[in-house]
Amino acid sequence: MKITNILVVSPMYKELQQLIKKEEFQNDFQFLPESKMTQTDLGWADALVSFNLKSDYDYSSIKWVHSLGAGVDRFLFKKEWNQDVLLTRTICSFGQRIAEYCLSYILKDLQFHDQFQDFKRHKNWQPMTPKLLNEQKVMIYGTGEIGQTTAKILSGLGVDVYGVSLSGKEKDYFKEVLPIDSHYSRLSEMNYLINTLPLTEQTAHLFNEKIFRHLSGAGFMNVGRGASLDVGALLHALEQNHVRFAVLDVFSQEPLPLENRLWDHPRVQITPHISAVTTPNEGAACFLETLKNIEENKPLHNKVDVKKGY
Amino acid sequence: MKITNILVVSPMYKELQQLIKKEEFQNDFQFLPESKMTQTDLGWADALVSFNLKSDYDYSSIKWVHSLGAGVDRFLFKKEWNQDVLLTRTICSFGQRIAEYCLSYILKDLQFHDQFQDFKRHKNWQPMTPKLLNEQKVMIYGTGEIGQTTAKILSGLGVDVYGVSLSGKEKDYFKEVLPIDSHYSRLSEMNYLINTLPLTEQTAHLFNEKIFRHLSGAGFMNVGRGASLDVGALLHALEQNHVRFAVLDVFSQEPLPLENRLWDHPRVQITPHISAVTTPNEGAACFLETLKNIEENKPLHNKVDVKKGY
Repeated sequence: MKITNILVVSPMYKELQQLIKKEEFQNDFQFLPESKMTQTDLGWADALVSFNLKSDYDYSSIKWVHSLGAGVDRFLFKKEWNQDVLLTRTICSFGQRIAEYCLSYILKDLQFHDQFQDFKRHKNWQPMTPKLLNEQKVMIYGTGEIGQTTAKILSGLGVDVYGVSLSGKEKDYFKEVLPIDSHYSRLSEMNYLINTLPLTEQTAHLFNEKIFRHLSGAGFMNVGRGASLDVGALLHALEQNHVRFAVLDVFSQEPLPLENRLWDHPRVQITPHISAVTTPNEGAACFLETLKNIEENKPLHNKVDVKKGY
Repeated sequence: MKITNILVVSPMYKELQQLIKKEEFQNDFQFLPESKMTQTDLGWADALVSFNLKSDYDYSSIKWVHSLGAGVDRFLFKKEWNQDVLLTRTICSFGQRIAEYCLSYILKDLQFHDQFQDFKRHKNWQPMTPKLLNEQKVMIYGTGEIGQTTAKILSGLGVDVYGVSLSGKEKDYFKEVLPIDSHYSRLSEMNYLINTLPLTEQTAHLFNEKIFRHLSGAGFMNVGRGASLDVGALLHALEQNHVRFAVLDVFSQEPLPLENRLWDHPRVQITPHISAVTTPNEGAACFLETLKNIEENKPLHNKVDVKKGY
């Protein structure tokens, strides 16, 4: 595919502009913050690099969209997509980042960080024996690149890692991969649940009472998408101790509104969508690699299947 | 060596008694709490299983002492040891336990747990990008079983791990092992320091101003022995920001006295000597394996070199 004019629209447009040296490319570039983008800019471009699309704009001149994030629901979920337009997404150290994020909260729990911090406050010398990773069972929803890297790191540390996917197809680093429909009976054994799934019709509100009621005091982590979680069901499950604690990095509405009850729950940790950030360096590198592959007609490992939605 | 009467003196004597089925052994056993042990019990035994020795007792009938802990300074440091008496120590999952303890505090730091917990309290949506393990450099003091297992786990996650030992002999999983005398110039690069060294003449007060002044905001973790740390020098280094935070699991006096200034320091985390506990299961298994090896005259991988002190 021949790409001529590339429009980069992002909060980190300045950093990207510094990293992408125009003079090294045949293509022409424009770098803008979202607030400055006009229809004229869009009409000029045949490729768009961005975290999302804005409604009320005409994108018909665009042949290729490159998502600066890993998730592409902001492009596809409940939206019409012109099948002729190529959609690619950023794949970089997201798997590593999400694995370390999840591992940190599992270890915080196993090593009783909160309890010892509290004991210290009261100068209370009270031994408790930390639990070991190799005594834990974790269920990871999503066995794609992010879920699999997380499985690789956790299983390397001795954790028994189970996967859940639509197909239930076996994958490396998972002890077993279960199809969503038949995984419920295994939930009561699990110490931790990790959601890495993209937002699609099938995963919207997937984490609801139907899953939570099977849990026996598990920790729940959401690093996928906020709309996959039924917040009311989670709060109920916390109350019933089916869920012992939750760590949430993604929310249906971000920033999480001040009036949301999650802010006040003592057993919910909230992080502001930071478990898998695109750094300017990685974002630029992945975009440029994709551009090169497109121009040289090479296979694209980060091409989105727009019908599947990920 | 022929062992007849075995005296097990420990706070967990009941658990050990349940795990060690007398009827399966030729040997005779007695299980006691420390407070109940008499000179008569000691005179009866030719083997002693315990965490430590008590002064004012005559141990001359004992041919073999098995330490229920990994550290044997309570048997050897500044004490006379009869060279004819065999001393063995517990080696089980200490390496794994200490590695997970240290990893948990490194990840807590890299993932900004405290900051996000604080932001949550104020309903403050403030993104910060976590740092990755593969951008970190860690120096581990002690390249024995515990230090090496820690190095294995951290290097497996991408951390650059350096070792410090008396000899400076190269070991697997360390990028480089430095002799204590010539390691100072490398300290300023380090993000974290981990002490796993046993307490000996050479390691008493090793962590003093001489080491701390070279650091540039490193995290310091002590999972070795409390007497290896000069507490005054640490507090000074925290003040000067040579040390950014400390995680201490071991202390010269345990429980840590209420009046100790460490309790009140906001950048010091205190845990009550739990990073490498001996569980009854593991303690019994290691002791029984050692007993079997002794009776069958097999090599003992957990024999202590009483001259070296570890």
